[in-house]
Amino acid sequence: MAQGSEILEDLYKTIVSRRGGDPDKSYTAKLFARGRGKIAQKFGEESVETVIAALSEGREELTAESADMLYHLLVLWADCGVEPAKVWAELERRLGVSGIDEKKSRAKKG
Amino acid sequence: MAQGSEILEDLYKTIVSRRGGDPDKSYTAKLFARGRGKIAQKFGEESVETVIAALSEGREELTAESADMLYHLLVLWADCGVEPAKVWAELERRLGVSGIDEKKSRAKKG
Amino acid sequence: MAQGSEILEDLYKTIVSRRGGDPDKSYTAKLFARGRGKIAQKFGEESVETVIAALSEGREELTAESADMLYHLLVLWADCGVEPAKVWAELERRLGVSGIDEKKSRAKKG
Amino acid sequence: MAQGSEILEDLYKTIVSRRGGDPDKSYTAKLFARGRGKIAQKFGEESVETVIAALSEGREELTAESADMLYHLLVLWADCGVEPAKVWAELERRLGVSGIDEKKSRAKKG
Repeated sequence: MAQGSEILEDLYKTIVSRRGGDPDKSYTAKLFARGRGKIAQKFGEESVETVIAALSEGREELTAESADMLYHLLVLWADCGVEPAKVWAELERRLGVSGIDEKKSRAKKG
Repeated sequence: MAQGSEILEDLYKTIVSRRGGDPDKSYTAKLFARGRGKIAQKFGEESVETVIAALSEGREELTAESADMLYHLLVLWADCGVEPAKVWAELERRLGVSGIDEKKSRAKKG
Repeated sequence: MAQGSEILEDLYKTIVSRRGGDPDKSYTAKLFARGRGKIAQKFGEESVETVIAALSEGREELTAESADMLYHLLVLWADCGVEPAKVWAELERRLGVSGIDEKKSRAKKG
Repeated sequence: MAQGSEILEDLYKTIVSRRGGDPDKSYTAKLFARGRGKIAQKFGEESVETVIAALSEGREELTAESADMLYHLLVLWADCGVEPAKVWAELERRLGVSGIDEKKSRAKKG
């Protein structure tokens, strides 16, 4: 069993392995079968629930909703071909080069 | 420098250390100073951008927006007192006990 | 039956009249009973579905999701004590005083 | 000047008339020029702000954010070729045929 946040890599690998599986046996396979729009929708809905939990509920609910949201994010990454390592590298680049506060100096995205 | 997804733990620690800092010098300190509503809003907005990137843009944009979203999620966790380890444990519990597909058997949340 | 967008006022009145009703007989009464967090969540989820419909589906789906979203928005307004007329007045103020493009000159909300 | 919710029809017409206009002179023309992904993003972000206002702020903020959200919704409808009348008809159909609570009997969209 994974330690710490390696769980995200393990989960990603498991998710990728379910692609093309039987939608009746695997929720993940079912999500892939329903397509990117549905996957993005579920991710978006879980994000909304994460916001609500943070503002109106307790730590336990925020933890549970965050886990739901991250699972659907990983399915979305898998469907789009984005490896977790690419996102960690992006976060590391920001932390390393210019500090977590680099955002201050980013061009306004509007 | 962190390897792999430990970046999330490192980033979380850095974020926590900025709490109470000078809002003029740190974007993170500024976010904490503006309060949970603003932090949740930024997280929600970055989630929307992640959805848009997945549906209308490319891998690079999805990677960048996901990084933005995860950073704001960590600030939200920090503000609410949710440690990353709690969320990993929740994800691990689901993977370990009943498989990634346990969601199928969860009571409908409606 | 209402003509045109008066439907929104009619719907709002109907929604308000369901407050305190039997949650087993009325979906609206049930929503009120579950509280503002749940109402806001449903609105947020329908907004996500509206975004997905606009980007990945057709006009019919966008129409249906927009209707769902507006219904939940009206329930949210009712729960918070915001009358539709107040929102129309705000839109009218912007159109009338400075034009639809007044947003350009608004202070950046960040 | 429009009375009541006719403001939405008036606003929609104004929005449509800005299509193809000078992006430097009109925020609406600029939105159209940036494309559907950006329009959907702005709508989604304003929806998030509406949720935050409902849960953490007051009636005035909810009114203002709702107005912002509705404006961007109308731009999204215009970009996708959805006339407001279609959405009112959909709301009316639900109110008229099966009552506002028809949702109870709808098949779960899941």
